[in-house]
Amino acid sequence: MSSNTLINRLLPCLTWLRSYDSRQLSSDLVAASIVTLMLIPQSLAYAMLAGLPAETGLYASMLPLIAYALFGSSRTLSVGPVAVVSLMTAVAVGRLGADSGITSPQAAVLLALLSGALLIAGGVLRLGFLAKFLSHPVVAGFIASSGVIIVLIKASGDNVPELVATLWHNIGGLHVPTLLLGSATIIYLAWARSGLKPLLQRCGLSAFASGQIVKAAPVAAVVITTLIALLTSLGDRGIALVGTIPATLPSLRLPSFDPVMLRQFIGPALLITIIGYVESVSVGKTLGARRQQKIDPDQELFGLGAANLASALSGGFPVTGGFSRSVVNYDAGAETPAAGFFTAFGILLVAMLLTPLLAWLPQATLAATIIVAVAAMIDFSILRLTWNYSRSDFIAVAATTAATLLLGVETGVSCGVAASLLLHLYKTSRPHIAEVGEVAGTGHFRNVRRHKVETHPALLSLRVDESLYFANASYIEDEIFRSLQQHHGVHHVILLCTAVNEIDLSALHVLETVNQRLKAMQIGFHLSEVKGPVMDALQRSEFLQHLNGDVFLSHAQAVHTLQERELQSLRVHPEYQDFQI
Amino acid sequence: MSSNTLINRLLPCLTWLRSYDSRQLSSDLVAASIVTLMLIPQSLAYAMLAGLPAETGLYASMLPLIAYALFGSSRTLSVGPVAVVSLMTAVAVGRLGADSGITSPQAAVLLALLSGALLIAGGVLRLGFLAKFLSHPVVAGFIASSGVIIVLIKASGDNVPELVATLWHNIGGLHVPTLLLGSATIIYLAWARSGLKPLLQRCGLSAFASGQIVKAAPVAAVVITTLIALLTSLGDRGIALVGTIPATLPSLRLPSFDPVMLRQFIGPALLITIIGYVESVSVGKTLGARRQQKIDPDQELFGLGAANLASALSGGFPVTGGFSRSVVNYDAGAETPAAGFFTAFGILLVAMLLTPLLAWLPQATLAATIIVAVAAMIDFSILRLTWNYSRSDFIAVAATTAATLLLGVETGVSCGVAASLLLHLYKTSRPHIAEVGEVAGTGHFRNVRRHKVETHPALLSLRVDESLYFANASYIEDEIFRSLQQHHGVHHVILLCTAVNEIDLSALHVLETVNQRLKAMQIGFHLSEVKGPVMDALQRSEFLQHLNGDVFLSHAQAVHTLQERELQSLRVHPEYQDFQI
Repeated sequence: MSSNTLINRLLPCLTWLRSYDSRQLSSDLVAASIVTLMLIPQSLAYAMLAGLPAETGLYASMLPLIAYALFGSSRTLSVGPVAVVSLMTAVAVGRLGADSGITSPQAAVLLALLSGALLIAGGVLRLGFLAKFLSHPVVAGFIASSGVIIVLIKASGDNVPELVATLWHNIGGLHVPTLLLGSATIIYLAWARSGLKPLLQRCGLSAFASGQIVKAAPVAAVVITTLIALLTSLGDRGIALVGTIPATLPSLRLPSFDPVMLRQFIGPALLITIIGYVESVSVGKTLGARRQQKIDPDQELFGLGAANLASALSGGFPVTGGFSRSVVNYDAGAETPAAGFFTAFGILLVAMLLTPLLAWLPQATLAATIIVAVAAMIDFSILRLTWNYSRSDFIAVAATTAATLLLGVETGVSCGVAASLLLHLYKTSRPHIAEVGEVAGTGHFRNVRRHKVETHPALLSLRVDESLYFANASYIEDEIFRSLQQHHGVHHVILLCTAVNEIDLSALHVLETVNQRLKAMQIGFHLSEVKGPVMDALQRSEFLQHLNGDVFLSHAQAVHTLQERELQSLRVHPEYQDFQI
Repeated sequence: MSSNTLINRLLPCLTWLRSYDSRQLSSDLVAASIVTLMLIPQSLAYAMLAGLPAETGLYASMLPLIAYALFGSSRTLSVGPVAVVSLMTAVAVGRLGADSGITSPQAAVLLALLSGALLIAGGVLRLGFLAKFLSHPVVAGFIASSGVIIVLIKASGDNVPELVATLWHNIGGLHVPTLLLGSATIIYLAWARSGLKPLLQRCGLSAFASGQIVKAAPVAAVVITTLIALLTSLGDRGIALVGTIPATLPSLRLPSFDPVMLRQFIGPALLITIIGYVESVSVGKTLGARRQQKIDPDQELFGLGAANLASALSGGFPVTGGFSRSVVNYDAGAETPAAGFFTAFGILLVAMLLTPLLAWLPQATLAATIIVAVAAMIDFSILRLTWNYSRSDFIAVAATTAATLLLGVETGVSCGVAASLLLHLYKTSRPHIAEVGEVAGTGHFRNVRRHKVETHPALLSLRVDESLYFANASYIEDEIFRSLQQHHGVHHVILLCTAVNEIDLSALHVLETVNQRLKAMQIGFHLSEVKGPVMDALQRSEFLQHLNGDVFLSHAQAVHTLQERELQSLRVHPEYQDFQI
């Protein structure tokens, strides 16, 4: 049973294969046909975006899909070449010098290999949690900025200033027929996205049929421009065509290793891996949630790792789960990863049968496909959203966006992660500390600045809204004594620990210091509502023996006990009767 | 008034100078004499440790003390050469190739210059808070490991494996007379630390007088071994002496700039700056707390920055506030930074008058001084302490210690900081989530696993013991639904937010998803005890409009309201009476 479970975990496909039936088969076949039609131009276009020969796009759309179908945990994710990862591949490959000794396709294979190895290593070490440090705003800002860079491409630069320089430099060399063909295709594709469906429905087609036809619109652009090129010999007029694509299947071979090259590529491969993984998992989760299907983040590392190794073995480039294609797959009714398997078979047929025709496909058509697909990614509304919601989220997005546009995609991601981590640490290093008082008669304690509450002049109740750890320990010490200076006649300080989830050793030292300083000032130091795990840790130290005060289960109990003590000490020391309770 | 305050802030010395009187003067003079006696061998020894000529140690003990007296905020901190920073200087300088084109003293000056510039830049940008990310265990582990390296020195390696290799290689070349002299001095100094004071007291001296004499014991070692060397011509027998020290004052000059060199040194300088700053501030705080004097961490950046710039201008090397010397200064009664000023004057006299004699000082005496002073630093009890208190603190110390000993001092610090930050993030990315119930009749809610509490089968109350932010948002989503799977018949999920100090945009997205998923399952989603700042942020978003439930001021109110609703729905839908309240 246990080994059975392990096999089920390693090969999630076993779960759905057991109950696979003809209804699921037909749903998956329909979805696969539609995704194949979508994937033909996309795979060629993203290969072009990555700066690689067209056939590599087809190769990256066969074996990787099968590998993911076997090892992945999402039922509807469509894995293959995607825009952002292709752009990052182009940047990494483009940085190769002429004297590097390897070709661009070899470099791309190496990137896929490294990315696959990193993903599987992450799966073994269960490092899926690391991806969480890419916050939603950072990813959103990064995707939008990458979109800008892709649309502006043409491109021998990997950031906006370089791109502008290249464009300016090439402005005289623009080829007018290419520009016209490309612009016409862009206009057609953009119209197809918004205008085609209503038109078809007005012509009497059902909403469903219209929707499916709209998804085939990019294929129509491919067919039409290929036929035009074939019939009018566009290639002779200086319009660049895709050219001969070898009508062979990818040959399986181990990529050649070069330690120096490996070291040079490990950084870019790591970023491609992280971004690809995060994008894919978030797509998978979004789709999974709609059908109450669960994504296992650690299993996804294996699934995507296998897909990238398969891509490396078959001459492709880094792949991941893409948003738009997965949504199409889902909407078209895909029920199991078998749809991905059938899609791979569809691309295989295309690679074997249609490559002589695809040789006539104008490159401008592919460029137009990329631009229209990616234009939808350029959504900077995250800037407005974060500005309204939280200033530190906004700073993280702004840093990501600015760094991506000005310094390049790789620096952009790193800056975004660094900015969000530093902001988080900065915030927790200066936590919110509230003086609290009792909401009359309720036993509930709230911030004195926000609520009408009762306080006692000899008691200072402070609630620290953060765990106590090395980064904020001394700040908290300073704040306690700053607060004491603003109150006179305080005999007891009570730290309300509802929000304290941890006290680390550095913070414990600071609490010892606070305790000693308060003792020297003849002020008691008490804790209330200390959580179980924190209390366990305190009991392992000597702090509680030294504590010049008590630990109370509830803050109300602390306040009432200490008020009572104050009353008694007033009776004993009537000279202190300068205040009344 | 405001400009007055600004000047007071920039020159803290103005505050104490205004009320300086003859009683303070005499206290400061006494302390300065004792610290000067202590500083003579230390300044020479730490210069030797840093791999620099003896006079640079004297130079680093004059102007820097004056600069700190003017700009520093601690009244009793003794600034100058210290062991750890000297070791780090030795490592950075030692890495210079023979073809670097600059001498070791020039490199040391450059390090001091960079360190001073970094400190002052940090002061302008108010970056004092960054030092908090060096946790107490990391600093303790680092200091102890550095001590090991210093004691093992002799040394052309900057980590333990290299040192062992060097020692092994040199074992045949050991100079027996030097070894004997050094060992004798070590034994004398070690005995003076523990055995001299009781002996003097038994001879009838007061505890105070004995204590002051003990502090002069290292000077006695210097005087005696110098006299022996002078009278018996030890130098001719192959024992290395300090040799001629130029009897000149340091000449003020701007250090020469070399951009390449600057870039090579910026990393080491940054680490020296951070470690020096953290050590100094922690010493200053410890001493300040005893007399209720305040240290301003940002002003300390200016004070130590000025001291390092002064060191660079006068041919010294990086300096900071040292622990042992500051304690001596404090215990000897220093009242104001004027004591530092007088100490600088004492060292000036030594440099002008005593250098012909110090030429005869055996280097073995200085080595013995370092070893005995530093042996006290080697305190690995932090390993045991953290092991008992918290496993993650222990991992941080162990990583720091291992990396410092095996990979060198600079890698050691970086590993320590990285380990403690990653551990903190890892912990907050998997927060403690407790199901809570009511302690009967109290309105207080506690963990069902730790307390005897009452729960209602249709309500699931979860308390998340952490702020909700990008790193833990999806974990929390998973835990909510995992918890739901373990309970049947839940109609309402209530998130108790006492420990939630922030909800960032990523977490807000996840809460929206949770809300939608629960809505699809016909389960209400409620929040209770949401803090003011968090509620403000939520109100700036659309989350509360979408929320399929309510926000309650107190958890008790939430539970009672929802129990009441359940009762009513039972009356309306009697078919649901499968449980009793």
